[in-house]
Amino acid sequence: MGKVYLIGAGPGAPDLLTLRAAKLLAEADVVFYDALVHPDTIALATKAKKIAVGKRAGQLSTDQRFINRILVEAGLRHACVVRIKGGDPMLFGRAQEEIDALDAAGVPLEVVPGITAALATAASLKTSLTKRGVSRSVTFATPRVGHGETPGEWADAAANGDTAILYMAMGEVEAVHAALMNRGIAPSTPVVIVENASLPNERQIRGTLETLPTLVAERITGPAILCIGQVFGPIDARSSTTAEAIVSTINN
Amino acid sequence: MGKVYLIGAGPGAPDLLTLRAAKLLAEADVVFYDALVHPDTIALATKAKKIAVGKRAGQLSTDQRFINRILVEAGLRHACVVRIKGGDPMLFGRAQEEIDALDAAGVPLEVVPGITAALATAASLKTSLTKRGVSRSVTFATPRVGHGETPGEWADAAANGDTAILYMAMGEVEAVHAALMNRGIAPSTPVVIVENASLPNERQIRGTLETLPTLVAERITGPAILCIGQVFGPIDARSSTTAEAIVSTINN
Repeated sequence: MGKVYLIGAGPGAPDLLTLRAAKLLAEADVVFYDALVHPDTIALATKAKKIAVGKRAGQLSTDQRFINRILVEAGLRHACVVRIKGGDPMLFGRAQEEIDALDAAGVPLEVVPGITAALATAASLKTSLTKRGVSRSVTFATPRVGHGETPGEWADAAANGDTAILYMAMGEVEAVHAALMNRGIAPSTPVVIVENASLPNERQIRGTLETLPTLVAERITGPAILCIGQVFGPIDARSSTTAEAIVSTINN
Repeated sequence: MGKVYLIGAGPGAPDLLTLRAAKLLAEADVVFYDALVHPDTIALATKAKKIAVGKRAGQLSTDQRFINRILVEAGLRHACVVRIKGGDPMLFGRAQEEIDALDAAGVPLEVVPGITAALATAASLKTSLTKRGVSRSVTFATPRVGHGETPGEWADAAANGDTAILYMAMGEVEAVHAALMNRGIAPSTPVVIVENASLPNERQIRGTLETLPTLVAERITGPAILCIGQVFGPIDARSSTTAEAIVSTINN
């Protein structure tokens, strides 16, 4: 019996993969990859059989139970099996079903974390998700509601965090706008949509909670992150003054 | 004028650095590093002058305004300046002050994201922070309150997320226990403390919200993450049944 490595490929740019993930891809006998993993990342698996089991919203995709089953089978037959997903597997990655299936079958498993899209987005925007005196909490949520789940719970979480980061929200901007306005979030709260974070075709669209429904007028087809909160607004007067003081210190 | 790279070193294990960060360290003329960055990571900067500007809770550390100033000065004088911090710089990393100072001085800046401690923790625990039907939101917060900040806001955020991840919480477990109990979180809610996630001396301490104050009886000296939520409990009956069905399918 071998080992299965459940790996996060990061947000898109191939060089935002971890060193550990790159080494494991080079050693892999089989690689199962999702649609959002960059071709240059898959190409690091020079000696592996590569199998696409991708999921993209609204497109035909491999059934999750079938993926679970082929992972267990591969783990029983090969020394080094890599299962690689976009972003980080433990955040909106449906990883638990695969982990539980491997555990139940007694197949050894290691999870290798990846850069989640929200943190690549913050890096691109040069905006810290936390900031003393402004944001001491960040909520990652999705407005997508599955079978048997309670609608609106995500909005309670998002409304109570100082900064809110919504995954898989592009089809739900009207609902996000309504739910957060209903929960008393100020219409002037800064909003940024970042599509394809970390890739050459990255796009940043800025507005406010009030204008959110109009921001997706241009069709967004790539994976996108919706950022909501005061940290996404312009630098406040106090920060600028501090910065000017620093420059003045250096020049004198 | 050169460029300053604000880099996340990841949670601790040197091979959880990104490929981009490793390349930039090798090219760097100067590296400013925090106390939590692994010595093997700093060692990748083979030709750089290396300067510790570390901060650890309760220890003597370099004043933030001084760090801002030396970063600007280095950016004006060197081609490739690396500022590297543990975890991801945009999540509880005090990055915004450094970014604003560099922007104000007109020094080009790029942020390179890192694996944040919470995602390394989830990988170690083999527990997805989100799970269909159980957790559709995750709150990252800190119970530490700065000057002029409102106590308890972090607890509203944490109580409203399905999963709560608390940074820098080890000195405040009594307050966390009280605040979350007061907000109606069930005493039986699973809790895990993970110290030194991803390192050889990693420690996992499990309990419930009710037993949280007793979990830190053994002194925790390394950086630790406090995880609270149903996803940290045992695998439920339904998952096990699914997993058994898979194994049975394979065996027959």
